[in-house]
Amino acid sequence: MKKLIIIVLLLTTVCFTGQGQRKTVNLPDLPGYVTLKCDFHLHTVFSDGNIWPTARVGEAYRDGLDAIAITDHLEYTPKKDFIPVDHNAAWKIAENTARDFNLILVHGAEITRKMPPGHMNALFIQDASLLAVDSVMDAYAAAIKQGAFLQWNHPGWKSQEPDGIPKLYSIHKDLIEKGWIHGIEFFNSNEYYPLVLTFCRQFDLAVTGNSDDHWVISEEYEEPSYTHRPMTLVFSKARTHDALKEAMFAGRTLVYFRDMIAGKEEYAKPFFYQCISVGKPYYENEKSVYFEVTNRSDVPFYLVNGIPEAPQSITLAANGITRVVVSREVVAPLIYDVKNVLTGEEEVLKIELKY
Amino acid sequence: MKKLIIIVLLLTTVCFTGQGQRKTVNLPDLPGYVTLKCDFHLHTVFSDGNIWPTARVGEAYRDGLDAIAITDHLEYTPKKDFIPVDHNAAWKIAENTARDFNLILVHGAEITRKMPPGHMNALFIQDASLLAVDSVMDAYAAAIKQGAFLQWNHPGWKSQEPDGIPKLYSIHKDLIEKGWIHGIEFFNSNEYYPLVLTFCRQFDLAVTGNSDDHWVISEEYEEPSYTHRPMTLVFSKARTHDALKEAMFAGRTLVYFRDMIAGKEEYAKPFFYQCISVGKPYYENEKSVYFEVTNRSDVPFYLVNGIPEAPQSITLAANGITRVVVSREVVAPLIYDVKNVLTGEEEVLKIELKY
Amino acid sequence: MKKLIIIVLLLTTVCFTGQGQRKTVNLPDLPGYVTLKCDFHLHTVFSDGNIWPTARVGEAYRDGLDAIAITDHLEYTPKKDFIPVDHNAAWKIAENTARDFNLILVHGAEITRKMPPGHMNALFIQDASLLAVDSVMDAYAAAIKQGAFLQWNHPGWKSQEPDGIPKLYSIHKDLIEKGWIHGIEFFNSNEYYPLVLTFCRQFDLAVTGNSDDHWVISEEYEEPSYTHRPMTLVFSKARTHDALKEAMFAGRTLVYFRDMIAGKEEYAKPFFYQCISVGKPYYENEKSVYFEVTNRSDVPFYLVNGIPEAPQSITLAANGITRVVVSREVVAPLIYDVKNVLTGEEEVLKIELKY
Amino acid sequence: MKKLIIIVLLLTTVCFTGQGQRKTVNLPDLPGYVTLKCDFHLHTVFSDGNIWPTARVGEAYRDGLDAIAITDHLEYTPKKDFIPVDHNAAWKIAENTARDFNLILVHGAEITRKMPPGHMNALFIQDASLLAVDSVMDAYAAAIKQGAFLQWNHPGWKSQEPDGIPKLYSIHKDLIEKGWIHGIEFFNSNEYYPLVLTFCRQFDLAVTGNSDDHWVISEEYEEPSYTHRPMTLVFSKARTHDALKEAMFAGRTLVYFRDMIAGKEEYAKPFFYQCISVGKPYYENEKSVYFEVTNRSDVPFYLVNGIPEAPQSITLAANGITRVVVSREVVAPLIYDVKNVLTGEEEVLKIELKY
Repeated sequence: MKKLIIIVLLLTTVCFTGQGQRKTVNLPDLPGYVTLKCDFHLHTVFSDGNIWPTARVGEAYRDGLDAIAITDHLEYTPKKDFIPVDHNAAWKIAENTARDFNLILVHGAEITRKMPPGHMNALFIQDASLLAVDSVMDAYAAAIKQGAFLQWNHPGWKSQEPDGIPKLYSIHKDLIEKGWIHGIEFFNSNEYYPLVLTFCRQFDLAVTGNSDDHWVISEEYEEPSYTHRPMTLVFSKARTHDALKEAMFAGRTLVYFRDMIAGKEEYAKPFFYQCISVGKPYYENEKSVYFEVTNRSDVPFYLVNGIPEAPQSITLAANGITRVVVSREVVAPLIYDVKNVLTGEEEVLKIELKY
Repeated sequence: MKKLIIIVLLLTTVCFTGQGQRKTVNLPDLPGYVTLKCDFHLHTVFSDGNIWPTARVGEAYRDGLDAIAITDHLEYTPKKDFIPVDHNAAWKIAENTARDFNLILVHGAEITRKMPPGHMNALFIQDASLLAVDSVMDAYAAAIKQGAFLQWNHPGWKSQEPDGIPKLYSIHKDLIEKGWIHGIEFFNSNEYYPLVLTFCRQFDLAVTGNSDDHWVISEEYEEPSYTHRPMTLVFSKARTHDALKEAMFAGRTLVYFRDMIAGKEEYAKPFFYQCISVGKPYYENEKSVYFEVTNRSDVPFYLVNGIPEAPQSITLAANGITRVVVSREVVAPLIYDVKNVLTGEEEVLKIELKY
Repeated sequence: MKKLIIIVLLLTTVCFTGQGQRKTVNLPDLPGYVTLKCDFHLHTVFSDGNIWPTARVGEAYRDGLDAIAITDHLEYTPKKDFIPVDHNAAWKIAENTARDFNLILVHGAEITRKMPPGHMNALFIQDASLLAVDSVMDAYAAAIKQGAFLQWNHPGWKSQEPDGIPKLYSIHKDLIEKGWIHGIEFFNSNEYYPLVLTFCRQFDLAVTGNSDDHWVISEEYEEPSYTHRPMTLVFSKARTHDALKEAMFAGRTLVYFRDMIAGKEEYAKPFFYQCISVGKPYYENEKSVYFEVTNRSDVPFYLVNGIPEAPQSITLAANGITRVVVSREVVAPLIYDVKNVLTGEEEVLKIELKY
Repeated sequence: MKKLIIIVLLLTTVCFTGQGQRKTVNLPDLPGYVTLKCDFHLHTVFSDGNIWPTARVGEAYRDGLDAIAITDHLEYTPKKDFIPVDHNAAWKIAENTARDFNLILVHGAEITRKMPPGHMNALFIQDASLLAVDSVMDAYAAAIKQGAFLQWNHPGWKSQEPDGIPKLYSIHKDLIEKGWIHGIEFFNSNEYYPLVLTFCRQFDLAVTGNSDDHWVISEEYEEPSYTHRPMTLVFSKARTHDALKEAMFAGRTLVYFRDMIAGKEEYAKPFFYQCISVGKPYYENEKSVYFEVTNRSDVPFYLVNGIPEAPQSITLAANGITRVVVSREVVAPLIYDVKNVLTGEEEVLKIELKY
């Protein structure tokens, strides 16, 4: 009898692993959309990760995410001498915990091949075991049959591309033509690949950013420098699994890591303006006008290349208020480049401060 | 010539002392009012403090405050062998810096006497030197003549009241009757005096909370335990010196320190409801209903004494999202005491969660 | 071919999981002994833990420990639907990693029964599977046959003793009489049981302190409040597996957690004196003598109940230097109680400062 | 009467300003010398600083320093409208506090001129007011007459040398020839000037490093990145004012800031070897030898340019233990460059690891 009590208690503990308090992530919604914070690339002991699936839910809950996918390798299962291969095990184990903690759990798997074509995550699937087949094209076909979103993972990973530069091999071009690639990772773990922005723009694919974590998130991204993992921001019509899937296929994403935002200008621009508000001047004298810019988001913005009559550069600190002093002579609009919001391989967002 | 350049540079540096980046303090406005974060009790080298007046402005700017008063002792000037007594010096020195940094600088002074009546801050004055007179009643009269708000400081300070309990001596009663006390400190530095809530309610006075800092704020209130000084929250019709003064005389205040809020229920209740939002249930089964409460403020709330069908206690973490699971059987309202929001000497705020 | 390269890289990563930089733990050796920092109670996915065995080695390496035991439950294996039961698996998986990282890995297992007798760790065994038998006494006998050190775990754990007080049931008395209990946990996770000091003194058993961790250490014991897990300090003739075993059976231990040290006075007293050094007076005047006490250990010491002519209480901060001013009138020795060094259920260490 | 009690209490508080707990700085002594940690460049409200002199003592006590000099500008006193000029005031105010807190207070002043010759600190003087004369050479002469150590401050300060490169003007050469310059700042605040190492070697001068702080130390050098101010390490025959002075004139110094050490090889080399200890191999197999290097100092060391059979680079973390694996084939000595120990403008320390 007493033993039973212990068991129940221990099970409860398991559910809470890694959870802590759920924090609010200060990233604004866009008009008409809710901004879902997502990590679509995570590993567990069911491939080469080192933690149990429910812990992935606990971590994401604590980090204030809205959705995650556990994407264990189909072809690489180094723990199989101790853990029999079951490609759906992580999903089955974590499903109810995700539901209880109000987290969207996307069913996924990583199709893990040498380059080309490299690694590809199949997201929004129903049965990962059907993707564990010899031919890579058969694996993709099995995923597509299940309605999968296919994400090309870390295309510039140095283990596969020693120069760190993603390359479009003919198999990738074929896949894009067939509509079998829907998104590409710009951020993966601590890396990013600028060229991905060009690919995504050219072929109208979703830009994604994920942790690809094999150990625990809190030890990979320690405070105070980096308080969060890489994440995909998805602008979704609702906070549901199906709305998320629709938004992903529609490519309505930005990516966020450290102090960087990247993605298409059509999302980056309204996102920036939702983050900041420019106050009316609070003081003027014969020479200058003083006003404040409030940034209520967790992302700092580094404005550079200002016009001559205004500060050359301004940092709008995250969750901070920045005082700006400009000459009364200013007549032109206060235009800046936002150095840390990338809209292309070599382009950054241009904005205007209106006070 | 070169020397002049250095001097200019050095002066600029002085202006920025202690400033850093201005942070946003997440405390909501009340309907019809803007919430001003204020510290009405600060010292400099012009009495027994150890820093220069402009540094007080720099610190307050960085901390995201809206208003401060520098209130050096009129009767205690231990540095006078090196710094000639000038009761308006701190004000004169800091005035322009405050204006340039969008901070309301309230002109003040501390009338420093043994108990009774103890120490009293005169706020919103024009000339502190006129208050430096022998008779304490004459000092008050000189302040009142300038339209001062008189704040009774740290009424339970152990150096003056060894048992730590504030006492209303006859001089205090006389002053209250004459309308010459307008507010009392509940928080002072690291102390607080519960009885102040009773006095303020009984005589309809403003509750205040201030740092009384003599050294630097950042070393007195270190992260991570306490990230902020004690402050008076003033519900003002506008963010101006005069609106602030009106609100203070009207007693529209709460006080905030560590994880505590204190003050009159008429302000504490709407403040609480402005801080939190209760989501719709995200999951239900035969037994339970699951929903989330989001607290977008910097104040955690500790809910206790719940009804039997709901959690006995719930912590709504600051800037956090809290998952609540209640029985489907709940029919009564979800009423809680908020342990850390004091509305009386022995009373806390009562609230209801409506999901 | 390329695939092979990836695999090798991934395996390397696994070895390093949780490792980080090895830190020095500032705890002095005792004359004739080296102080080994140990954690003899850890879980992995092979029972109800949530991480992989090599990660336990990585964590201990980073934390500057000298020895750990992985002690998965023999009778409680809630992941068995996904991970076949193998009581020696964690040991086999972690053995080489421990050797490569200069960590002593003690082979162990937790014999997990209801109270009485409760949970018991068998340490220094060779084959855990032989302990997985129905009768608890048979399990102990199998451990003893392998030369095991038997540690009674968390004797006051509230799931088994709702009042939190350890109790010696007749089975415990029998086991002690047979010499089948060799140590008892004083610290377990975030708990401690003062009565354990009485039991250990009475029956001459080793006092132990361990984390009993099921998740990751860094999330259970976060900076800055608590920078380390509970640990057993073993005073060993050498830093080897066999010397450690000898010291454990000889009961040469103290335990350490947060800012507390506990154990027998014969080890606590020399340990204290190895931590601190008292300087010669650096200044004297007609009234007072000034000197400094340096504490080069990670443990602060809280001295209380001083004699009248000296400070009533002194805090010797960890890795700090403390200035002490005593009256010239002092003739008696400067005797103090060290509030946070427990030598008995209701006793603390008494020390003298000689300057 | 009561008022007196308050006054006494307040005075006590003043003494403790900025003090906190004194920490141990882990930097080893050299054989025959004690390593004194010093800051010879600090400002207060008596020139253009913003804090009171006793606070400089409190800060240095907390930071574990052994000696400081308060060196207010003689020629730049922007607070003189409120604080009458008294060049010895800071010294008089801080002297007793320093004595009570076991800190060596060096009497100093900054002779503040445009470049050339720039700013120069006179240290170990008796009366700063005698140095406040029109002619810069007269000022130096007055200092020399008092036995002063003359330190050329921040020779590459961009306000005086826009390209940041120190230059030896003819006046400097004359001064050096006369023996009127004894040391040069390599570190000043957040800057450093590599060329200073060349000057100091060429003319046999002491290398110094100081904070030049005008505000409070804790806000200038915040954890966790930089936990300490720039400091001059002086290898002194004893911890006394006079021994310190002898060591300074003898040029027995290194400088320390962030993760950098700089100075003459004759001090840098034994300093390095006092910081680290190399353990005996703990494991060997057919291919490799495994050993550990313990670094008990607060300075990390970055070893680079290793021989082919050993790791190319090794980081010996501060207060850490580093595992090194080398090939059994190694026959040559394990020689490394220590990237962060500068012994010349373009030279770093060369060391050997003997295991």
